[in-house]
Amino acid sequence: MAVNTENPGFCRSRLEELLKKRFFYCPSYEIYGGIGSFWFVYYGPPGMALEQNILNVWRKHFVYEENMLEIGTSIVTPHEVLETSGHVSKFRDWMCKDPSTGEVFRADHIIKEILLSRIKKRVESGLEGEKVEGGASGTKFDTLDESLSRIREYEDIISRIDGYDGEGLSRVIEEYDIRNPATNVRMEGPVGFNLMFATEIGPKGNMTGYLRPETAQGQFLNFNKLLEFNNGKMPFASVVVGKSFRNEISPRSGLLRMREFTMAEIEHYVDPLNKDHRRFNEVENVKMKFLTREIQMSGKEEVIEMKIGEAVARGILENTTLAYFLARIHLFLIRIGMNQEKLRFRQHMNNEMAHYASVCWDAELLTSYGWIECVGCADRAAYDLTVHSEKTKEKLVVRELLPKPMEVTEWVVNVDKKKIENLKFPSSLFTIEQVKKTISVREYIPNVIEPSFGIGRILYSLIEHSYWIRSDDVDRCVLSFPPIVAPVKCLLVPLSNNSAFDPIIDKLSFELRQLGISHKVDDSSAAIGRRYSRNDELGTPFGITVDFQTVNDGSLTLRERDTTRQIRASEKEILRVIKELSEGLISWDDVLKDFPIFNKQITDIPEITDLYIRE
Amino acid sequence: MAVNTENPGFCRSRLEELLKKRFFYCPSYEIYGGIGSFWFVYYGPPGMALEQNILNVWRKHFVYEENMLEIGTSIVTPHEVLETSGHVSKFRDWMCKDPSTGEVFRADHIIKEILLSRIKKRVESGLEGEKVEGGASGTKFDTLDESLSRIREYEDIISRIDGYDGEGLSRVIEEYDIRNPATNVRMEGPVGFNLMFATEIGPKGNMTGYLRPETAQGQFLNFNKLLEFNNGKMPFASVVVGKSFRNEISPRSGLLRMREFTMAEIEHYVDPLNKDHRRFNEVENVKMKFLTREIQMSGKEEVIEMKIGEAVARGILENTTLAYFLARIHLFLIRIGMNQEKLRFRQHMNNEMAHYASVCWDAELLTSYGWIECVGCADRAAYDLTVHSEKTKEKLVVRELLPKPMEVTEWVVNVDKKKIENLKFPSSLFTIEQVKKTISVREYIPNVIEPSFGIGRILYSLIEHSYWIRSDDVDRCVLSFPPIVAPVKCLLVPLSNNSAFDPIIDKLSFELRQLGISHKVDDSSAAIGRRYSRNDELGTPFGITVDFQTVNDGSLTLRERDTTRQIRASEKEILRVIKELSEGLISWDDVLKDFPIFNKQITDIPEITDLYIRE
Repeated sequence: MAVNTENPGFCRSRLEELLKKRFFYCPSYEIYGGIGSFWFVYYGPPGMALEQNILNVWRKHFVYEENMLEIGTSIVTPHEVLETSGHVSKFRDWMCKDPSTGEVFRADHIIKEILLSRIKKRVESGLEGEKVEGGASGTKFDTLDESLSRIREYEDIISRIDGYDGEGLSRVIEEYDIRNPATNVRMEGPVGFNLMFATEIGPKGNMTGYLRPETAQGQFLNFNKLLEFNNGKMPFASVVVGKSFRNEISPRSGLLRMREFTMAEIEHYVDPLNKDHRRFNEVENVKMKFLTREIQMSGKEEVIEMKIGEAVARGILENTTLAYFLARIHLFLIRIGMNQEKLRFRQHMNNEMAHYASVCWDAELLTSYGWIECVGCADRAAYDLTVHSEKTKEKLVVRELLPKPMEVTEWVVNVDKKKIENLKFPSSLFTIEQVKKTISVREYIPNVIEPSFGIGRILYSLIEHSYWIRSDDVDRCVLSFPPIVAPVKCLLVPLSNNSAFDPIIDKLSFELRQLGISHKVDDSSAAIGRRYSRNDELGTPFGITVDFQTVNDGSLTLRERDTTRQIRASEKEILRVIKELSEGLISWDDVLKDFPIFNKQITDIPEITDLYIRE
Repeated sequence: MAVNTENPGFCRSRLEELLKKRFFYCPSYEIYGGIGSFWFVYYGPPGMALEQNILNVWRKHFVYEENMLEIGTSIVTPHEVLETSGHVSKFRDWMCKDPSTGEVFRADHIIKEILLSRIKKRVESGLEGEKVEGGASGTKFDTLDESLSRIREYEDIISRIDGYDGEGLSRVIEEYDIRNPATNVRMEGPVGFNLMFATEIGPKGNMTGYLRPETAQGQFLNFNKLLEFNNGKMPFASVVVGKSFRNEISPRSGLLRMREFTMAEIEHYVDPLNKDHRRFNEVENVKMKFLTREIQMSGKEEVIEMKIGEAVARGILENTTLAYFLARIHLFLIRIGMNQEKLRFRQHMNNEMAHYASVCWDAELLTSYGWIECVGCADRAAYDLTVHSEKTKEKLVVRELLPKPMEVTEWVVNVDKKKIENLKFPSSLFTIEQVKKTISVREYIPNVIEPSFGIGRILYSLIEHSYWIRSDDVDRCVLSFPPIVAPVKCLLVPLSNNSAFDPIIDKLSFELRQLGISHKVDDSSAAIGRRYSRNDELGTPFGITVDFQTVNDGSLTLRERDTTRQIRASEKEILRVIKELSEGLISWDDVLKDFPIFNKQITDIPEITDLYIRE
C-alpha cells in the first residue's frame, strides 16, 4: 500500500487526535460503547461546515454553471425498482466465515491482507518462504526461485482481486489455504451478501424496500418529466445530493468506508450518436495524470501526464463529454484545495466495473490509506433507462424533430386480420416484407455519463492534503483549507478580557453576520497566541484582533493563518478584504500588495507580548 | 374541518395540476404504478430549489443569528438508543383491520372520518339520525333531541381523539359500531404499530437498527462534546437538518404526511433553574395568535391575539426561552411569505403530548386541509439526557463554577467497610446521617427546548398561501413567493428568436451567475406573454426582457411578477437592483421610487404586441 511519502512529518494518529479534539467528526454512537465503532459517522460543527462548504462550491462549479436540474429523491426504494436495476441480484460482496467463531470477513479483503502479510514475511526472512508443516517430507522451505515465483503469484492475485467472483474467491481460499489469522481455522464460503439495508414498508409486511445504494435510480425513473421540464432540450443533466447506504460486511478506514454516506451524483443525458461536449474547448488544455487500463495490465502504476485534449486525440478517452467531466472534476478538486501531485485518474479494468457501466474512470487521491477512489465517472450507456422502460412499459426516450424528414427501411410483419378473426391459421396468414417509410421524428434512449462524488472521502482526503505542522513549533498543527471551504472564515479575538472590547466585538460580529461571513468569537482567557493556534487547527484562515489601538482609532489587525502575517487597516477596509478573501475573489498576496505588513511590537500592554513573541 | 375560506377562488385540484405541470413534486415511484402512491415524494427542480431556499433562510434566521452548532448525525440508529429514548415502546399508532379484506386503517383517522360523515348525514337529513335496522322495533329514527345530543357526543369524541389510547379506541369502535365503509364489516383491533422502519445492521443478523423518527437523539448522545466545543458555555443550541422517517399506517394528504421527510430541529440546552432568554426583549412586542389549552378545553377554537411579552406576563407561556423561540418561529414563517392571518400557535393538550414532552406549542398554518401543525416547540425538560445517561453510565451534565462556594445539605449512607469484608451484616453496618458540605461547582442536567420544523409541511403551506389567480384572466395562476425563497429569481427572455439577442442573453446569464442569482433562460418560440405566464406559475419574481432597444443602447426592462409592471434601465442598474431584490434588501416599491414605470408600447415590432396587450 502506498503511503503519503510527500508529507514526511505526517502521523495519522496525531491528525486523528486533532480531528477528535476539534470535533470534526467522531463515531455516531460512542457513548453506547460496542455499537459505536466507526460504521456511522457524526460530524461535529467544523466537519459539518466543511461538508456544507464543499457542497456549496460543488453546486457552483457543476450545477449552477451548467444549469443542471437538482432534484430531491427518496431514500427508501421499493424492491421492484432495485430488482429491475440489477441491484437485488448484483449489488453484493463476498463474505466468508470462520466456522469456529462465527466471525465474518469480506473475502477479497481478508485474502489480500493474508497474501500481503505472506509477501512481507518472505521478504523479511530473506525469501525463505513459509514453513510447510505436516507434509510427507516434514518441514520444507522453498528455494529462492520458488519463493520469488510465489511472491509474483500473490502479487498477481492481489492486483486482480477486484475482478474475482464467488467461485474465483473460493478457489483462492482453498488453493492458498486462507485462514482466519486469529484462530488459524480455514475460512468457509464465500457466500454473496447483498449490501443493501432492507426494510418493510407499511404495516402489512408484504412490501420490501431498501435504503438506496446510490442516488441514480431515483433520477432515472423521472427522466420524462425532467426532459419536459428542460423544454425537451438535450443534452442536460439531473443531480441529487444526499445520503446513500451500504451495509458493509466489515467497515473500516474511518470516513473512507462508511455504511451511511453523502453522495453528490450527476446524471448527464446525452445522444448516443453524438457524445461531443459543447464546452470541451474551455478545458482541453487542462493537464492531468492518467493511469490507463493498458498501464495497469502491464503491472505498473506509472501515470502519464498530458493535456486532456491530447488524451482524447490519442483515443485514451472515448469522447469529449466524458473528457469534459474528468477535466471539470480535476478543476473542482484543485479548487477546494487538493494537492495536484496527489491526484490521478485511473481507468477501471474490464472486470472491476459495476454491472451497469461500460466505461469508468476514477479520480483517486493519495492519502495515508493509499490511493483512494473519491469520484467515479462512469458511462452507464442506456442500461438503466432501458431496463426500467422494459419493466414498466413506460417509454423513457428522447424524441428529436429531424431537420428534414428521413427515409428509413424496416422489416414489417403483415397479418391478415380477417383470418385471425376466423381463427384459421393458414400459412398465408403472415407476410413479411421490407418497406420504406419517411419519419420526421427520431426516437432514442439517451446514454448517461455519471460523475459520482463520495463527499466523505473527499472531505477526509482534503483534511490530509491540508494538514501540516509548523517547522518552528512541532506542537502547532495547521489545516490549510482554502477560505471558500474553511468551516469558519474568521476568528474574532479581543486582546484581553477588558470590557472596553465587548461592544466592538459585538458590532463586528453583527457586521460579519450581515455580510454572511461565518466567524467565531474567542474571548476565552487563553493567551492570544494560543487562541490563534487553536483556530489554526480548525483551519480558520483569518483572524481579527481587537486591541487598545482599536478602541482609540477603530483600526483592526487581520492575520492570515498560513503565514501568520498581519495587516492593519480601518474596520471598513478589513471587512471588505475579508469578504473578498472568503469568497475566493482575491488572495492574501493580493492583500499584501495593498497593505503593508503590520509587525509593530506594542510593548506597553503586557497581554499583547505573547502574540508577537510567538508569531 | 376548517377550509381556506379567505381564498374564495381556491381550488385544490387546480393547484395540484399546476404543481404537477411545473414539476414542483410528484410521487416517487409513479412509473412503477401501484407502489407509487403518495408515500414518498420526489421534488422536481422548482420544489427542490424552494426547499433549499427555505432552509437557507432558516439557517440565517436561526443558526447563524445565534451561533447554533449545526452537526450531522446518522439516520440508521441502533435499537439500544431508541429503546432508551422510549421510541421502541411508545412511538406507535393504533391500527385496526377489516378482517374480510385484510385492509388496515389508522384507528383514530377512521373513527374520526366515520363520525364526521354521520354528523353530516344527520344534518343533511334534517337531524333525523341514522336508521337503526334489525332491532326489535324494526326501523327506528331518533327524535330531534336525541339526534342533537348524539351529534354533540360525536363532536366530543372527535375533539379528544388524539388523546385516546388503544383501550379507548377499542371502546369507541365497539360502542359506536365502527365499520369499514367499503365493506360494512366491523373493525378488528386496534393493535399498536411501531412507526419506525426497522433494518438489520451488518451481515450477522444480530443487530437491529431503525431509521430515525426524529433527529433529536443523535444530538443528545454527543451533548458533552458539544458543550466542550462551546467552551463550556450555557445556554447554547445544536441543530440537525435532515431526513427522518415514519412508517405511517395509511399515509395521505400529499406532502403533509409522508413516510420520509425533511426536518430541521433545534435542541436548545438551558439551565432548568433559569429559563430566561437574554434576547427576549428584542421580540417581546411581536403580536401573535394563541389557542391555549383552556380555550380548547372549553370546546372553542377562538384564538386570542396579544404581544408575546403579554403572554409571558399573563402566565400563558412558562418562560421567556420558550416565548423567544415561539416569536422567532412566527417571524421566520412571516419572512418566508406565510399569510399572518392563517398562522396561530396552539398549545398541546396534556394527553396529546409526546412521551418526552412536558410543554408543547405548535405553530399551525391554515390550508385547504385545515389547520396543519408545521412547527412544534416542546420543552423536553431533562428527559432524554437523563435516560441516556442512566443507560450508558456516562454523565451528560453541565458543570458550573459557582461565583462563590455554596453550602449544601445532603443525606448520606455510611457503610462500615470492615464489617462488609467480614461478610457479617449486623444492624450497625449502615448509618444514615445528614451532613453539610461546601461545593464550588454545581452540576446539573440541562433542560431542552426543542423547536422542530417539518420542512415539507411548511413548503406545502407556503405554496397554498402564495397561490392566486389573476382577476383579469382566470387562466393565469401566480405563486407569489418572496424573492428570497423563490426557486428561480429571474427569467431571461429574448423578445424573439432573432440571433442578435443570443450574445446578450449569454452575457447576462454569465453576469447573473457571477452574482449568484439563479435564473432561467426561456428562448422558446412561445409568445412573450405566455413565457411570463408560465414563469408566474413557477413563482419567478423578476423577468428581464432583451429587445431591439437593448441591441441599440444596452438597456433592459425588468418586470415584477405580482404587479406585472416594468421599469427600464441600463444593464448595470438592472443587475444591481435584481441582486438587492433577490436578497430581500429592497422591495419592488423601493425600486419604483427610483425608476419610472416603463409602458411605452412598441408597435413597430410585431412580436412585442402580445406582451403589452396581455399585460
